[in-house]
Amino acid sequence: MKVIDLERSRKATAVAPSNIAFTKCWGKKDEILRLPENGSISMCLSNLLTTTTVEFSPKYTRDEVIINGGGVEEGEAQRVIKHLDRVRKMAKISLKAKVVSKNNFPIGTGLSSSASGFAALTLATSKAAGLDLSEKELSILTRQGSGSACRSIPGGFVEWLDGDTSETSYAVSIFPPDHWAICDVVAIVSEGKKEVPTSVGHKAAKSSPFMSIRLSHMKEKDKLVKQLIKEKNFKSLGELAEAEALELHAIMLTQYPPLIYWTPGTLKIMKLVSHWRAEGIPVYFTINTGQDIHLICEQKNVKKVVNKIKSIKEVKEIIVNNPGEGTRLSQNHLS
Amino acid sequence: MKVIDLERSRKATAVAPSNIAFTKCWGKKDEILRLPENGSISMCLSNLLTTTTVEFSPKYTRDEVIINGGGVEEGEAQRVIKHLDRVRKMAKISLKAKVVSKNNFPIGTGLSSSASGFAALTLATSKAAGLDLSEKELSILTRQGSGSACRSIPGGFVEWLDGDTSETSYAVSIFPPDHWAICDVVAIVSEGKKEVPTSVGHKAAKSSPFMSIRLSHMKEKDKLVKQLIKEKNFKSLGELAEAEALELHAIMLTQYPPLIYWTPGTLKIMKLVSHWRAEGIPVYFTINTGQDIHLICEQKNVKKVVNKIKSIKEVKEIIVNNPGEGTRLSQNHLS
Repeated sequence: MKVIDLERSRKATAVAPSNIAFTKCWGKKDEILRLPENGSISMCLSNLLTTTTVEFSPKYTRDEVIINGGGVEEGEAQRVIKHLDRVRKMAKISLKAKVVSKNNFPIGTGLSSSASGFAALTLATSKAAGLDLSEKELSILTRQGSGSACRSIPGGFVEWLDGDTSETSYAVSIFPPDHWAICDVVAIVSEGKKEVPTSVGHKAAKSSPFMSIRLSHMKEKDKLVKQLIKEKNFKSLGELAEAEALELHAIMLTQYPPLIYWTPGTLKIMKLVSHWRAEGIPVYFTINTGQDIHLICEQKNVKKVVNKIKSIKEVKEIIVNNPGEGTRLSQNHLS
Repeated sequence: MKVIDLERSRKATAVAPSNIAFTKCWGKKDEILRLPENGSISMCLSNLLTTTTVEFSPKYTRDEVIINGGGVEEGEAQRVIKHLDRVRKMAKISLKAKVVSKNNFPIGTGLSSSASGFAALTLATSKAAGLDLSEKELSILTRQGSGSACRSIPGGFVEWLDGDTSETSYAVSIFPPDHWAICDVVAIVSEGKKEVPTSVGHKAAKSSPFMSIRLSHMKEKDKLVKQLIKEKNFKSLGELAEAEALELHAIMLTQYPPLIYWTPGTLKIMKLVSHWRAEGIPVYFTINTGQDIHLICEQKNVKKVVNKIKSIKEVKEIIVNNPGEGTRLSQNHLS
């Protein structure tokens, strides 16, 4: 990594991918440290990206956060500022910062914009503050801002290790992006934000009577997913990912209060996917804590999948993703 | 009950209600006897009715089944004929029969047409065969044709007792129809039959990792529902019924293969219900193993609920039900 000369510059820009989890994390062992109840396995997404520029400067009298060209809600700004504070503490600086962030996809709809957002924020902030953190340190720091964001630091296929402490709960790459030519075709079915943010829903995970059973089989599931990715066993990975998404949503539906993240468009596509398989297209869905739906297929079948979804009236946008690189620095500063 | 004179007539007609369960039955202890995994509590529905005429006669050389003016699929006809056989065996007769049945609502969409169907069939067949069965005997016999149909024999608010044998698994009225002025406003969101019949889904219930947890708390849930009906505690009954419907669907979503019964229209209304509550209308949903949605409210709020759903484009028909009578004989024979 390039060392930034603090005398000349306190500005840095990072680009980070969102990621799609094959095994999901839901519920937390530690709310403050954002330690999840279980490990999880994901893939970085080549075309769902957040670019963030952070500038520390004596000219700023307060921290300023601009996302997608506009201001942000108080709670959201506070979460970003708290993350800046973590970095300032590590770097022993007190300068205020300007954060400018842009997503190339909708936020708050189940595309894990907080994953790419906090991954980019962490790298840009730490670099601008003059720190030169390792991938592990970046992943740990990112996790404290937004749990699953730690999976967006390393590239390709990623495991978020099931650690019980802050030092052991971070993500590592298990295979590089070019290990396996599979795709995540994202169908955006809504531009509205979800009614309940993920961070609120997490806290009530244990109110589902089924949560303890879920936790008891997650280690085994993670192990199996790693094996299936290693073997490039598409059918079994697809089946497992789809069942895991349904299990996640079954937990959320049985929480108190229940969380119903799907929209009619999500459900329409979920039901169509099995028909498409019956027609001979190997495609499986997965869904995060939101409404947009991820269609997992091999690269050779992307066109067929895109053709199927582009005629569905609820689909507002389609984004095709390959396994992507992790979070990296960029020379193109946002202002 | 009137005794039929077998020398003059072997024809009888019965009218039976569908029922809506506040606690659902899913999975079976005994597949052949249709003994469910747990007890359940329901309400008979005044306006979802099946009328069935059964005529035993030497003029018939084979059993004939006509539903809603047409023939039925082979499997469905066999299920009816098997039920005729049960009655023939009890009555020690061998005559063939003509069965003519009409529903005033769509079948196979989650409105429990097999409940009203088998309840009406049981009473009409047993009467036509010259039997004069007690309510308990009718409920036990009905259950063998279609499990939850046994809850449509007694009237009003009904409990299907959690029996471990055929003789102890039947339904009883716990409160008469006029006990409580609550309504089930049914929103029919589809006229297509569900892709997987309930009877197929039942068999895979135990493949859900969550089924054992569900079964461990059903007795307590049934006890609570009875108490809430007794106390006429609408809010708590509504909350419990809604959570129970979500739990049922969480089980089905996590079965192998998963069952996704909701349609976009179902989900749209599910999500609107909590908004209507926020606007001050006390209304809760419940859903059977199908796509149509049942909105439970007090009679004084029926107009408000109907007004909300009649403008939703996916709603094809609205049927308002009071707590209804059980299965009864009719003088108006279908032919």
